Amino acid sequence: MARPKASSKKISQGEHDEASAEYQRGMNEIRKQLGPMADSYIEKIKALAPEFAWVNVTFPFGELYTRDVLDLKTRELCTVAALTVQGFSLPQLKIHIDAALRCGASREEVVEVITQMIAYAGFPAATNALMTAQAVFQETDEPEKPKKAAK
Amino acid sequence: MARPKASSKKISQGEHDEASAEYQRGMNEIRKQLGPMADSYIEKIKALAPEFAWVNVTFPFGELYTRDVLDLKTRELCTVAALTVQGFSLPQLKIHIDAALRCGASREEVVEVITQMIAYAGFPAATNALMTAQAVFQETDEPEKPKKAAK
Amino acid sequence: MARPKASSKKISQGEHDEASAEYQRGMNEIRKQLGPMADSYIEKIKALAPEFAWVNVTFPFGELYTRDVLDLKTRELCTVAALTVQGFSLPQLKIHIDAALRCGASREEVVEVITQMIAYAGFPAATNALMTAQAVFQETDEPEKPKKAAK
Amino acid sequence: MARPKASSKKISQGEHDEASAEYQRGMNEIRKQLGPMADSYIEKIKALAPEFAWVNVTFPFGELYTRDVLDLKTRELCTVAALTVQGFSLPQLKIHIDAALRCGASREEVVEVITQMIAYAGFPAATNALMTAQAVFQETDEPEKPKKAAK
Amino acid sequence: MARPKASSKKISQGEHDEASAEYQRGMNEIRKQLGPMADSYIEKIKALAPEFAWVNVTFPFGELYTRDVLDLKTRELCTVAALTVQGFSLPQLKIHIDAALRCGASREEVVEVITQMIAYAGFPAATNALMTAQAVFQETDEPEKPKKAAK
Amino acid sequence: MARPKASSKKISQGEHDEASAEYQRGMNEIRKQLGPMADSYIEKIKALAPEFAWVNVTFPFGELYTRDVLDLKTRELCTVAALTVQGFSLPQLKIHIDAALRCGASREEVVEVITQMIAYAGFPAATNALMTAQAVFQETDEPEKPKKAAK
Repeated sequence: MARPKASSKKISQGEHDEASAEYQRGMNEIRKQLGPMADSYIEKIKALAPEFAWVNVTFPFGELYTRDVLDLKTRELCTVAALTVQGFSLPQLKIHIDAALRCGASREEVVEVITQMIAYAGFPAATNALMTAQAVFQETDEPEKPKKAAK
Repeated sequence: MARPKASSKKISQGEHDEASAEYQRGMNEIRKQLGPMADSYIEKIKALAPEFAWVNVTFPFGELYTRDVLDLKTRELCTVAALTVQGFSLPQLKIHIDAALRCGASREEVVEVITQMIAYAGFPAATNALMTAQAVFQETDEPEKPKKAAK
Repeated sequence: MARPKASSKKISQGEHDEASAEYQRGMNEIRKQLGPMADSYIEKIKALAPEFAWVNVTFPFGELYTRDVLDLKTRELCTVAALTVQGFSLPQLKIHIDAALRCGASREEVVEVITQMIAYAGFPAATNALMTAQAVFQETDEPEKPKKAAK
Repeated sequence: MARPKASSKKISQGEHDEASAEYQRGMNEIRKQLGPMADSYIEKIKALAPEFAWVNVTFPFGELYTRDVLDLKTRELCTVAALTVQGFSLPQLKIHIDAALRCGASREEVVEVITQMIAYAGFPAATNALMTAQAVFQETDEPEKPKKAAK
Repeated sequence: MARPKASSKKISQGEHDEASAEYQRGMNEIRKQLGPMADSYIEKIKALAPEFAWVNVTFPFGELYTRDVLDLKTRELCTVAALTVQGFSLPQLKIHIDAALRCGASREEVVEVITQMIAYAGFPAATNALMTAQAVFQETDEPEKPKKAAK
Repeated sequence: MARPKASSKKISQGEHDEASAEYQRGMNEIRKQLGPMADSYIEKIKALAPEFAWVNVTFPFGELYTRDVLDLKTRELCTVAALTVQGFSLPQLKIHIDAALRCGASREEVVEVITQMIAYAGFPAATNALMTAQAVFQETDEPEKPKKAAK
């Protein structure tokens, strides 16, 4: 990844260049998907682990999601499927259900993907995902309440 | 599920009606997705566990996949994402990569979904899925070899 | 599955027949296992996803659990073992520990199954299951408190 | 665990006492469950990792399985459920399906537990377990072939 | 394991000897790693399941961790890596991040192991682990608040 | 990541610059850890999915492993722990056991980490990892046989 001085020697923490094109491209993408919570989400990680935050911005968002092979809606539905099956990543599932809606998926489509996952991961995983979707839908319907930054 | 005598008493093995509309709808769907191997796949399961085979035909294929909320290509890409993340279900991933291609997905799109999953499940799961995709592509390119019924 | 009009055409949401024998058989079974919370549990799911609720009632409860190959107590202990190992499905484990007790298992037997799982899934999964069992036992011992419908 | 010299100082590899009552109790139990392959299974592990083998004999077999809270058949069916859900442990599932049959479970009961797990872990995990059961049944039906020591 | 009467007959619950050298060695080790919360943690488990508590003290702590092949800091970092990847065992991850710091690891090293796990388990698992590390660091920085016994 | 033309517009497949400092740093690192099989491993992935290969070289190897917070031996032991617990990633575990030995870990230390994981992931996962270690040790002892490029 681009760094102020592109050398092949050992790198120490914090010397990543946030003004670089690659970092900005990642931040643009993360804002498009996560909406208002994007910046605070990254800041929260950066405060503890700058390297983790850098990789999070530049790799999945700056690198993977900006490729045009698949449209964003299909990508997000695939991620909803994946996190439903994974079972333990409900905070991230919440973020990506929100992102799926932001990218043009309907609530019915999100629920359909989760329902389909019953066949691949069973009822417990799918039920927990369904309850997560319900929480996202409720928060969206009650915009007056301040939305907490998801973990 | 519809049975010859729709009663609420205990049911014993084997009394499911394969001539029923629901079973036929499931078999039609499974043939559309799995292609030539569909019937032998179900027969293989039925020989050992008739109840398992009945549920496999009527529930995911007869019930879930025939709903028109999502198109089949999107459904299959979501399943590819899910099985990539699950890690241990490579025989089924193979079947669904094949099904995704049959339902209109390009090889590039299948590889893209698997690559996206690096972000959600890491390199080992994604690498094993990529090798599975490669095996499907090679078998498709060499149609002269008899394709073994996937597990 | 049986529907008002048993056809093989595409089906749309909500046309499942809850008065059918298969749905009633599933509801009877789910009430036997989950007790007082059964109806509110299904209603909660149905409000968001009618298809998910229909499948949940008719497939595991109406279809699997009503087969007489295994007694209900053994089935529930197997489910306790499975959900202990799965690790992320503690809300469902809670429901099935309660169901195991309702189906004739003793607390000692439930704890024994969880302890046995140390060997197959390690201490973290087993410890979380043990704490879940403790929560169920405490709620059962304090019936005056209103029991919240488990997720 | 009992050692030749029961002290609280650091212990080095290999000083466990295989003549001790606890080790013998574990070996008796493992032979009861695994049958003829028990000794070669443990020897194979011991050749590489004596500590691993000692713990394997004394902990799950010498300690857990000799407790009389649950009968062995129920324990083995619970283990079959657990390993079905776990997905990646098919070599061990094979051993425990064999052990379940040895402890009095019928083939129908083993298949029933695996079928029940569709609801908790989905079709891929359950299908792979079903194919594993089929392999065990076939090997049992063809005793003339030398049975390879399962991994 | 050593018991008051070392026989090979069936054992019943509760006859383990906590005054034995092996149990004391395990308790010493668990106190060294978990610090002040060690005794209450084991008592909490013992109140519900004496067998579980006995195994927890004598097996991982009395047996595994007292072996001198690896230093404790390396062992704890490996456990942090393992629980990060496991995903669902955040209460235990919390305990072992605390133990890693107690055994000489720096906060930077703990964060580095978690960051490395992005490559093997993806962002959701690693992000949840990072947030768990942050919670441990904050509790350590605010010693005036009574630290709750972690589950 | 650095590309020939660092712009924030959409990127298409294949325009990554393998002559860049970051890619070379990653390749150097991957060769240090994987030894002779490093180049063929990456070539194999690149033939099917150039983007996947680029990310694999630049992210875990070029970015994570070149940071000097932890020594390589500790990193590799952590990865062995992680992949042991993950259960399904035995091809990658094989690569990293080999890499651990290459980075200074002894066979005894590798076996010790795997044995420790019994406590966190149970016997099936740990046993499969132990058998994988045995396979690596045997291949190392028989250098005359051509070592197949691990998947």
